Amino acid sequence: MPELRKDYILNRYVIIATERGKRPDQFKAKKTSKQVKNCFFCPGNENLTPPEIGRQLLDASDVKGWSIRYFPNKFPAVHQEGKPDITTDNDFFTYADAFGVHEVIVETPDHNKELADLSPDYISEILKIYKQRIEILSEFPGVKYVTVFKNHGETAGTSIIHTHSQIIAYNIVPVIIQEKEEKSGKDCPYCKIINIEKNSFRRCFENNSMIAFTPYASRFPFEIWIFPKRHVINITRFNEDEFIELAEILKKVLLKLKELNAPYNMYLHYGIEKLHFQIVIAPRLAKWAGFEFSTGTIINSMPPEKAAEFYRG
Amino acid sequence: MPELRKDYILNRYVIIATERGKRPDQFKAKKTSKQVKNCFFCPGNENLTPPEIGRQLLDASDVKGWSIRYFPNKFPAVHQEGKPDITTDNDFFTYADAFGVHEVIVETPDHNKELADLSPDYISEILKIYKQRIEILSEFPGVKYVTVFKNHGETAGTSIIHTHSQIIAYNIVPVIIQEKEEKSGKDCPYCKIINIEKNSFRRCFENNSMIAFTPYASRFPFEIWIFPKRHVINITRFNEDEFIELAEILKKVLLKLKELNAPYNMYLHYGIEKLHFQIVIAPRLAKWAGFEFSTGTIINSMPPEKAAEFYRG
Repeated sequence: MPELRKDYILNRYVIIATERGKRPDQFKAKKTSKQVKNCFFCPGNENLTPPEIGRQLLDASDVKGWSIRYFPNKFPAVHQEGKPDITTDNDFFTYADAFGVHEVIVETPDHNKELADLSPDYISEILKIYKQRIEILSEFPGVKYVTVFKNHGETAGTSIIHTHSQIIAYNIVPVIIQEKEEKSGKDCPYCKIINIEKNSFRRCFENNSMIAFTPYASRFPFEIWIFPKRHVINITRFNEDEFIELAEILKKVLLKLKELNAPYNMYLHYGIEKLHFQIVIAPRLAKWAGFEFSTGTIINSMPPEKAAEFYRG
Repeated sequence: MPELRKDYILNRYVIIATERGKRPDQFKAKKTSKQVKNCFFCPGNENLTPPEIGRQLLDASDVKGWSIRYFPNKFPAVHQEGKPDITTDNDFFTYADAFGVHEVIVETPDHNKELADLSPDYISEILKIYKQRIEILSEFPGVKYVTVFKNHGETAGTSIIHTHSQIIAYNIVPVIIQEKEEKSGKDCPYCKIINIEKNSFRRCFENNSMIAFTPYASRFPFEIWIFPKRHVINITRFNEDEFIELAEILKKVLLKLKELNAPYNMYLHYGIEKLHFQIVIAPRLAKWAGFEFSTGTIINSMPPEKAAEFYRG
C-alpha cells in the first residue's frame, strides 16, 4: 500500500509508492564515460581557470604541486557587483542584483577518481576547505548565506566531469534554511529525530560522532542524511575527530552509491542560529515530472526503509 | 548583470543568469525517436489497458472508434483503499495511506501526433474531459484535490511516448495550492498581475478571454503561464468560448515549444475558494542540481523577457 508521508518538520509531502517498488539494482544507472580531451580541472591546465584562491598539497612528493585547488567559477551565477539589497517598496516585482561569490573546489588532480575513491583523511581536508570558505565568505558584505554543494554525474547537473564541489555565497538566506530555522525551537527537533532514527529501520551508518539515515519522507530514491550526533549548527564548529568521522561516513555512503553508478547532488545545510548541521545526499535516479512540480508532493518508488537495507548490506 | 527575483506572491526565488544567456536555438533539444513496437495506447491494444472509463469520438466516420480514451492508470501512485486521513497525534512521523484515483487520458489514437498538432476544437474537447474528471473525482470521499498534468518527452518524465494526460486525485490539498490560496485575499493578486503583464515585455499571446505570459520569476527556461482574463477559479466554470480560446492559446504555445523539441510538463492550478485558475507549462531544457535542491533558489539562464520574444517571434 503506498503511503503519503510528511517531512519530519517541513510542510513537504511524498508518496512512497511501495507497490511500484523495484529492487535496488533495478535503479542502477549506466556508467558514463569519463574521457575528455582537454579538461579545465586537470593538472597542466591551471592557467585555464581564473586565478587560484588557494591550494592544498597533501603529499609533498606529489609532482603536480597540488591535491586540492580552489578558484572563482569562470561562469558565475552571482557577481560581486550591484546592490545586494532586495526591493521592499513594490508589489509583485521584488528583486535584487544576484550578488555574491561563486567558487569551485577541485577535489583531486586525478581525472579518473571520484570523491568516494579518496581516503577519509583526504576527504576531511576537503571538508576543512568547506569550513574555511564558509568562514571567509560569510564575512563578505552583502552575503547572507554560503551554500556548499556538489553535483556528481551529468544527470545531476555536472557540466565538467572532473570531481569538484561548488560554493555560492549570495544575498538571501535560502527559503529552505529559513523554514528549517523557524521550526527549530528551543528544543532541537533534529536532536530528537536522531535519537529515534538511531534505533529505526532507516539507520544506515554510525560512528562515535556521526549518524547517517534515510529520511522518513525521502524525496529521492536512496536519499540519505548525515548528522553530527551532538547539537552543532555548523561545520565551522567541528572538532578534529568530527571532520574525520564525517569523512568516514561520507565515504561509506558514496561507495554504496557508486555501486549503482548513481549521479547525486550533495549539499550542506547549516544553521544561522539554531538549525542542526546536516549533509543531504540526493541521488538522481528518478525524474520529477508534472505531478511533482504541480503539487510539491514527490512520488518516490524506493521506500527509505529498503534503501537503508541497501546501504547497510 | 544576473538578477535575483522573487515570485509574484510566493516566497520563491530565482536567479535570472542573464550573462550566461544563450540564444533560444541554443536550448534546442535533440528530437527523440517515436518508434515503439507495441504501444499500450495505440488502437488495437485497448484490451491491454485497464477497463475504459470513457471515450470520445469526434469524427463519426473514424474506424478506430475513438478520438480520446480515458481509463485508470495500470500502475497507480495512489489507491482507493485504506485511510485517507492524515495522522495528527504524533511528532515527526505524519502519514496517511496514499489514497485516491490515478487515471490516464489518451489524447489521440495517432501515435505520431502530439498535443500541439491537434486542432483547437479537438484540444478543447480534451480540456472538457479535464473538467469532467475534476468534477467527478472531486466528489469522491477522501479526495481533497484533483491534479491534472501532462508529461511530454522522456526528459519530462514520460514513460509512454504516445501523447496522454494524467489525473491524480488524492487526499491532501497540494502545499503549493494551499500557499497560493492563502496569498489570494479578497482582491485577487493574479487579476492585478494579468493587468500589468498585459502591457509588459513578458506578454506572449492574448485573445478575447485568455492571456499567456512568461512569469517574472520563471524557474524554467521558456516557462509560460496561461490565465483566463476574468477571475474564474476553475476550468469547471468555463464557458464554451473560454474552452476554445484556451485551446487556441495552448496550441500556439506548444507549437513554439515544438520548434525547440522541448520536453515539457504542463499542469492546471485551480482554486478551492479564491485562487485564479491557471495553466503552467514548464519546459525541461535545463537541470536542477545541488544549488537548486539545497536552497530552493532556481538558476534560470533564459530571461523570461527573452523567452517571450521567442514566443511572439
